[in-house]
Amino acid sequence: METIRTVPWMKEKAREARREQQIIGFVPTMGALHAGHLALVERAKKECSTVYASIFLNPAQFGPNEDLSKYPRPLAADLEKLTNARVDGLFLPSVEEIYPSGFSTYVHVEGLSEGLEGRSRPGHFRGVATVVLKLFEILQPHYAYFGRKDAQQVRIIQKMVHDLNMDAELVVCPTVREADGLALSSRNTYLGAEERKAATVLYRALQAAGEELAAGVRDSLELQRTMMRILGSEPRARVDYAKVVDAETFEPVVKVAKRCYAVMAVRVGMARLIDNMLIRPEAEGLVVEL
Amino acid sequence: METIRTVPWMKEKAREARREQQIIGFVPTMGALHAGHLALVERAKKECSTVYASIFLNPAQFGPNEDLSKYPRPLAADLEKLTNARVDGLFLPSVEEIYPSGFSTYVHVEGLSEGLEGRSRPGHFRGVATVVLKLFEILQPHYAYFGRKDAQQVRIIQKMVHDLNMDAELVVCPTVREADGLALSSRNTYLGAEERKAATVLYRALQAAGEELAAGVRDSLELQRTMMRILGSEPRARVDYAKVVDAETFEPVVKVAKRCYAVMAVRVGMARLIDNMLIRPEAEGLVVEL
Repeated sequence: METIRTVPWMKEKAREARREQQIIGFVPTMGALHAGHLALVERAKKECSTVYASIFLNPAQFGPNEDLSKYPRPLAADLEKLTNARVDGLFLPSVEEIYPSGFSTYVHVEGLSEGLEGRSRPGHFRGVATVVLKLFEILQPHYAYFGRKDAQQVRIIQKMVHDLNMDAELVVCPTVREADGLALSSRNTYLGAEERKAATVLYRALQAAGEELAAGVRDSLELQRTMMRILGSEPRARVDYAKVVDAETFEPVVKVAKRCYAVMAVRVGMARLIDNMLIRPEAEGLVVEL
Repeated sequence: METIRTVPWMKEKAREARREQQIIGFVPTMGALHAGHLALVERAKKECSTVYASIFLNPAQFGPNEDLSKYPRPLAADLEKLTNARVDGLFLPSVEEIYPSGFSTYVHVEGLSEGLEGRSRPGHFRGVATVVLKLFEILQPHYAYFGRKDAQQVRIIQKMVHDLNMDAELVVCPTVREADGLALSSRNTYLGAEERKAATVLYRALQAAGEELAAGVRDSLELQRTMMRILGSEPRARVDYAKVVDAETFEPVVKVAKRCYAVMAVRVGMARLIDNMLIRPEAEGLVVEL
């Protein structure tokens, strides 16, 4: 696997691949890779002839009091994982390479970026949209792979790509979970042993909402109360939000009728964890995907 | 000349041209074409194998009290001019094609967008940056041609292209002027006969500053006073601003030492006119370009 550290070199590689009629798949990451990331790579390898990954811990999407400085950076292990997964090229730029002195251009997806994660993390999605646009300009992917755990982020990137007439097509892959249901996240490494047990409360809360949906409940306040009850039963969990929102707009819904997400953010110890459940109406009734 | 009205069709044309190894030149316009626009096309025809123009009167760059509804739209004459100039394709989208219902993603070049034109026209450059990014995504130009009359706009687009790692290269062409020095502008059609005569005051003010520079004046306050004195001598002219600014940052300078612009915006009748003079240090001393 080739490691590419500069923008001009990465651009040249990607353009060469395009000229050779390669289908470029791209897996953007912040490193600290887990099986969720590797599932994205695996899917990209199936669907594309050239697969690039990036590792870039994007300061623009971290708030001043967030965990940028503590975020895990196990680079040697990451390189080994990507090599074993037969990634064709790793884009590994420095912060200065992406945000050179004087950088001042930002992309903002209005509306979608304001609620939920955007409310808890002001500026977060502006940083996400800006770096993803830059990465797409540099790597020219036909397909870009994202995990559904970050549902609001995925929706914002989809909206950006659509609004700005960009070419990349997003491929959204299911959340990968531990055996006990905890969604894989690089931030799970922050959890102590007791916190790790407590962290399953997100999955249990989503499951409880899923059971209510299966029993016919459609009122989102009732579903939110159920999620809050389960989350509240775990003394180590401090709830940031737990909502049922429209899957397009991420605005609250009154009744579950069309495609929705049950979404939540919960602090356990120093980890801020997010998770969600997709709720899809099908011919035979509602289907949930965890 | 082929006229292309939809984004998917234009994207397909541009990608076909790229596949055929064409060098794509692009001249974005808001229509009401004059010899300044046609000079851009002519330059593009010399340097590129496929030349696209666009006509799109971009509502996002007009303020609520500006001249969007009055802006001239002589489409038949524009089509004839572009055909005669042997443009290969005209992108002529509707407002809905560029800003479909629910559109909410904007690009903002911070700092550069706030002063001068940005101060007089809040949101103007956000609208410019957003539509130019979209047009570049759609038309995939190797080279894009802009007139230097809109110096701040050109600098903002250059900054956006650089910050966001976009591929288009900007080609900045000299301002085209009437025999009496008035810079060509679609908005000159707003001028009545007396206003038209008065409008030469911008050129005369820039010339006066140029003469002071030639006489060795380097103090920007003195140059600004000279410009204001000439502009003030014309009763039909209401000055918005007249400044000497750094050509990179568009921030005010104290002394003219590096590349600068003398820039001005002046209202004459219902027309808001802008003009500028580039000031370049060369080995033999300062050179000015009007």
